[in-house]
Amino acid sequence: MNKEQEGLREALCTLGNGYFATRGAAEEAEADDVHYPGTYLAGSYNRLKSEVAGKTLENEDLVNWPNWLQLSFRLDGDKNWFRLEEKQVLDYRQELDFSEGILRREMHFKDKKHRETKITSTRLVSMANPHLACIKWEFTPVNWSGPVMMRSALDGSVKNEGVKRYKALSSKHLKIIEQGKTNDIIYLLVQTNQSRIYMAQAARCHVYSGNKKLRTNREILEEEGKISERFSFQASQGKTVTIEKIISVSSSKDRAINEPLNSSLETLRNELDFSALKARHSEAWSRLWKQFDITLKSPGNSQLLLRLHIFHLLQTSSMHTIGRDVGIPARGWHGEAYRGHIFWDELFIFPLLNYRLPDLTHSLLLYRYYRLGAAKKLAEKEGLKGAMFPWQSGSSGREESQVIHLNPKSGKWLPDHTYLQRHVNLAIAYNIWQYYEVTADRNFMKFYGAEMLLEIAHFFASITTWSEFRQRYEIRNVVGPDEFHTAYPGSDEPGINNNAYTNVMTSWLFSHAKKAFELIGTTRQEALKQKLKLDDREFSKWEEISRKLYVPFIKEGIIAQFEGYEQLPEFDWEAYREKYQSIQRLDRILNAEGDSVNCYKASKQADVLMLFYLFSAEELVQLFKDMGYQFNPERIPDNIEYYVSRTSDGSTLSRIVRSWVEARSDRECAWHCFREAIVSDFEDVQGGTTPEGIHMGSMAGTVDILQRCFTGLEVRDNVLRLNPYFPEEITSLGMEINYRGVWLSLEFSGNQCRIKSRDGAASPVKIKFRDQLFEIKGKMIKTISY
Amino acid sequence: MNKEQEGLREALCTLGNGYFATRGAAEEAEADDVHYPGTYLAGSYNRLKSEVAGKTLENEDLVNWPNWLQLSFRLDGDKNWFRLEEKQVLDYRQELDFSEGILRREMHFKDKKHRETKITSTRLVSMANPHLACIKWEFTPVNWSGPVMMRSALDGSVKNEGVKRYKALSSKHLKIIEQGKTNDIIYLLVQTNQSRIYMAQAARCHVYSGNKKLRTNREILEEEGKISERFSFQASQGKTVTIEKIISVSSSKDRAINEPLNSSLETLRNELDFSALKARHSEAWSRLWKQFDITLKSPGNSQLLLRLHIFHLLQTSSMHTIGRDVGIPARGWHGEAYRGHIFWDELFIFPLLNYRLPDLTHSLLLYRYYRLGAAKKLAEKEGLKGAMFPWQSGSSGREESQVIHLNPKSGKWLPDHTYLQRHVNLAIAYNIWQYYEVTADRNFMKFYGAEMLLEIAHFFASITTWSEFRQRYEIRNVVGPDEFHTAYPGSDEPGINNNAYTNVMTSWLFSHAKKAFELIGTTRQEALKQKLKLDDREFSKWEEISRKLYVPFIKEGIIAQFEGYEQLPEFDWEAYREKYQSIQRLDRILNAEGDSVNCYKASKQADVLMLFYLFSAEELVQLFKDMGYQFNPERIPDNIEYYVSRTSDGSTLSRIVRSWVEARSDRECAWHCFREAIVSDFEDVQGGTTPEGIHMGSMAGTVDILQRCFTGLEVRDNVLRLNPYFPEEITSLGMEINYRGVWLSLEFSGNQCRIKSRDGAASPVKIKFRDQLFEIKGKMIKTISY
Repeated sequence: MNKEQEGLREALCTLGNGYFATRGAAEEAEADDVHYPGTYLAGSYNRLKSEVAGKTLENEDLVNWPNWLQLSFRLDGDKNWFRLEEKQVLDYRQELDFSEGILRREMHFKDKKHRETKITSTRLVSMANPHLACIKWEFTPVNWSGPVMMRSALDGSVKNEGVKRYKALSSKHLKIIEQGKTNDIIYLLVQTNQSRIYMAQAARCHVYSGNKKLRTNREILEEEGKISERFSFQASQGKTVTIEKIISVSSSKDRAINEPLNSSLETLRNELDFSALKARHSEAWSRLWKQFDITLKSPGNSQLLLRLHIFHLLQTSSMHTIGRDVGIPARGWHGEAYRGHIFWDELFIFPLLNYRLPDLTHSLLLYRYYRLGAAKKLAEKEGLKGAMFPWQSGSSGREESQVIHLNPKSGKWLPDHTYLQRHVNLAIAYNIWQYYEVTADRNFMKFYGAEMLLEIAHFFASITTWSEFRQRYEIRNVVGPDEFHTAYPGSDEPGINNNAYTNVMTSWLFSHAKKAFELIGTTRQEALKQKLKLDDREFSKWEEISRKLYVPFIKEGIIAQFEGYEQLPEFDWEAYREKYQSIQRLDRILNAEGDSVNCYKASKQADVLMLFYLFSAEELVQLFKDMGYQFNPERIPDNIEYYVSRTSDGSTLSRIVRSWVEARSDRECAWHCFREAIVSDFEDVQGGTTPEGIHMGSMAGTVDILQRCFTGLEVRDNVLRLNPYFPEEITSLGMEINYRGVWLSLEFSGNQCRIKSRDGAASPVKIKFRDQLFEIKGKMIKTISY
Repeated sequence: MNKEQEGLREALCTLGNGYFATRGAAEEAEADDVHYPGTYLAGSYNRLKSEVAGKTLENEDLVNWPNWLQLSFRLDGDKNWFRLEEKQVLDYRQELDFSEGILRREMHFKDKKHRETKITSTRLVSMANPHLACIKWEFTPVNWSGPVMMRSALDGSVKNEGVKRYKALSSKHLKIIEQGKTNDIIYLLVQTNQSRIYMAQAARCHVYSGNKKLRTNREILEEEGKISERFSFQASQGKTVTIEKIISVSSSKDRAINEPLNSSLETLRNELDFSALKARHSEAWSRLWKQFDITLKSPGNSQLLLRLHIFHLLQTSSMHTIGRDVGIPARGWHGEAYRGHIFWDELFIFPLLNYRLPDLTHSLLLYRYYRLGAAKKLAEKEGLKGAMFPWQSGSSGREESQVIHLNPKSGKWLPDHTYLQRHVNLAIAYNIWQYYEVTADRNFMKFYGAEMLLEIAHFFASITTWSEFRQRYEIRNVVGPDEFHTAYPGSDEPGINNNAYTNVMTSWLFSHAKKAFELIGTTRQEALKQKLKLDDREFSKWEEISRKLYVPFIKEGIIAQFEGYEQLPEFDWEAYREKYQSIQRLDRILNAEGDSVNCYKASKQADVLMLFYLFSAEELVQLFKDMGYQFNPERIPDNIEYYVSRTSDGSTLSRIVRSWVEARSDRECAWHCFREAIVSDFEDVQGGTTPEGIHMGSMAGTVDILQRCFTGLEVRDNVLRLNPYFPEEITSLGMEINYRGVWLSLEFSGNQCRIKSRDGAASPVKIKFRDQLFEIKGKMIKTISY
């Protein structure tokens, strides 16, 4: 990097209304940019591609500067196509406009022949039609005139090389089926190696001077896996030439298509007008923002980061994914980490979507429902009943968890028991119930929800064992959300016993499977009993287990993370914090030292605290009571304190949970954790994991802290409850939520809350603001001072 | 056919509870059987296959006797594999069990060496897992012992040759990608030529003597497009050997798969037990019947035929098609006629499904929604606004209507204007509204329904023109449901003007697009106005058109089918009925004579009567009133009489409409028409169209006559209305319907109606029995005498 480039580095800053993030740095232009922040816009395009592959694919062809969307050029006499390292960058600026979903870049550079050129690039992946992407260059010769050779390509030779530790894995996933040219369109049809999914792309590139389209002679170049066209035009000093490239993408997984290549050609043929395409795209974003925006008054860049998170979430999952057979991968479609596998992250993502696009959460639950068969087979293989959804779910719903993993610290391969995280099933169950609470969609419960809940309950019933000694039921050999503890010290047996989170949630599961069953009516009840081979004896058994599940305690009021946790020695946090820059991945550190994190009271994320995250104090007290335990809610802060001091925060989700659980007891701490959580991808706090893909759960979870935690938003017993308790830093908050089909606008400001319904045809909904119960119906505004 | 075979012919008869249809005839065993009644069970299998191809495929591999599901045999010394014509059939019987979805066949035959053999075949296509099919043979040597050679195959060389007049079209749609053997499984992966869809099949064939699996040496034969295995066993006189073949099918359009071939292999590996597979299948059918069965007491075989129709409907469209991107093709998946194109038939099919499986009609409406883009492009190409769904919709939603068609009577190709049936858009709109009325699913209306209604309304607004002369709006150059009238006599211009059905429905459309718009709330209203580029001026225009659409009348109270209909000469029905055996396809007869049906008052189906079919008298009077016409409902019988005497009933839908419209005025006639309609496929009244595929609209429509017409079932203004008026032949009727999420059991018997809700968690629903309004809530029984 030369001095000039260095000088261009700018801090990230907020502009205007908080919809803009800009980051200008020639540094990014070289490497990091591939993922950050250049990837912001790659999202929805990658989404398409990734669905196609069933794996995350390389996105170089989209974001690899300077070859933006496979568009490049060279000037008269140049041997090479444009390469940044051969130029002197005089000015560089990039701007991501969240409100319109547009990435703009301006660059001013000088080559060795002292020719200065300015390029302004405008790029988007359409939110109006997910099959379209486009890029426009405004190309201006500053101090020269002469011919310019352009190259526009479609590249099928991309590789998955975005995650270094996956180097040993196969990186080339595409094979070329067909490429060619028809009229002014070049096209490429590729197929994934193993899953046989087709992906077709077509591209048209036109050049304009003002409004006049320039005629150019095109030459087609077919290389292995890549088709390009090149053409030249005459550039004149100070005169801007516009290059517009429109790209269409289709896959064999698309709906309403005949064949992917035909489909992408047809789509492109209908799409001649860049500015019309751009206008439709921006409008689609503006409509989305009307529903998804959360306005916040608070110091610093929280507003910007909120929008950054919402923006990324919507790049991965939006109305365009409704009805498609896709889940929410842990890292969105923004990077290759975890290779597109589906974990439990939806537990953190659902609340944001449930209240805005319930058709989408419906669709995501169906994604699980369609894999219920695979989950049943998985349980059956282990000699268990019901359905066992895997920890890492592949495209067919098969278990994709690794059984060994590489420790980059030591270079060694280690056995990996994290697949024993049966709690993923509890997350699915919890989400089913939450979806129902928010939507009251009994039809979903009848057709799908109850069946899944029953199958998951059946599974959990089959993994419980009766302890004569305790006179209680146990769940042995599992791993909790804290992935550090995967076995007892020195034990060959994988897993730990009686993980408190798992056991309490299992008790919750049994009671809610029953509630769901009671909701669905006799006809469906009988059908499900027959289909799932369930009888009243089994239901009684669940009730019995539900009341007698064992929950370990360390001492009165302090829940033990799992049985025997209290016997583990304390960990020397101070020493290790001193010794290592970051101890988030303590497991790897200790392992490299020949030790094991299994041996200490040390957690990656405090899974006991998840209970306080998912349940209100009242609910939790009731849950424990049902299980025959007395739990004093006043001891919650003690539990928090106990575990917070024993947690490395090795997961981006950990801070969200902490912020949440502290919100009612320690507002300052809650705000602090919220801020830590909200910057985690933005500042790549894990030191390198963000370029491997953003953390979807963390991004959505931070928004949800504002949505539900600080506002006290909760639905219980057909009542929407509000109980705001804001950190001092927040002076106002506004959002729209959709509750049972009614759009409500909520505005908190000072000590006032304004609830507005603009929907004249809305059915009445019950709202309880702290202790005040009222009904909202039709168009009305309700203002509460508190 | 020899004498013995001739002697075996039996009439079709009803057995037991009306769930059985048997038809034994050696005649069928030769040829017709390929489609009838052997195809009953092929349905859901074909469905899978047909989805794959985007076209209906040859189903020889499934149903072509004697090669049932590609299973065959030969005895010691035989040169050929089993061929019926070389045997003497001593006994033959086949039985389709609707209740369990199983086709059983028994055959007793003698070969030239006087060896007598009995085979009982049991065959099913799983309703529990749509990826599975299986066949079991019980093979008994009656008077001999010796070796038997079996052959089990998977055949990818099938052709589409089921419709003779398509002979000129390409018939081979599959290319072989891979075939082979793994352990005891043979497999075949094929791909459709044009649409690049993969279809994988895997098969396992085991032989048992009693419970003992016989070890057999297998030999694999790979022919072009076909893989077989053959193996032999020793048969002993009087001892039954069982052969079980289980087949799995997957396609690249499947959900939750990784890759089709893997998927079909994986499915089959998990499926070892024929009887368990069969049990799950039968249970799935029993659950379906609980919701879909209509019990009827009436003379003759109506009960049987009702179940036959319901059975076929569910073979084409069931819970397994929910969420899949498939429409309802006119001929189900039972034959190749119309090559899988989607017409307007869902207008007749929806009511049955709406009241039982609304998730399915939701899904079918989404099938249209996903093709809204294609419909908009189609309108745009013609310089029109909004969305114009095509008359014959192909897989991508493109127009697939022919522009010429072959007259088999004359062998000539004729121009075909039937694509001008814009009323298909009105059918879609009508179904959206009906779905909403039955389910009250406002969420659907918000997300999808209103958008479609608005786009269709926008389209119709753009095809209306203002007539200065009439001071009314007109719709010119269309074709109505009566496809005989596609132009004015001698005119080069295609289409007719002001088709009454189209114009009245268009007025209905405008008012209901408005109603829908009012339902969806301000947020969505604003979003749609932006997205669809609609403003208040456009809405006002619709209102204006709606009130001023022109409807032609022949004379006071008699609606003209279209403008100028009254000027056409009468047709000499008597002469032609005498001259031709059937004049249903009068168009072809007249054309072959050098005349044209365009020149006469003669209809294929009376499209004016469709108005009385879709609307109650009160609604229709209101509709006309809104348009500024006075329509006297007492003239409805005159309209019926006028058109019935001028209709050739060339469509199977025609009789349904007639039965419906006569139900309140002439019960005897209604019953007569109902009977004519209900046998139409069963007796192939059109003389050859049934083997090309059953008529889905007609099958569902006849069931709907019982469901809605005779019971007077109707939903209007949030009230479910009942107003029974049964033909004398019906002494009792029972059915279950799902109204707004509540299962109601309705039983009509004598002059009593019993309404039962067994659903304790059901929300209250309003019911009006004639003039008596009451509420059903939770578990209750209500008995009304009338």
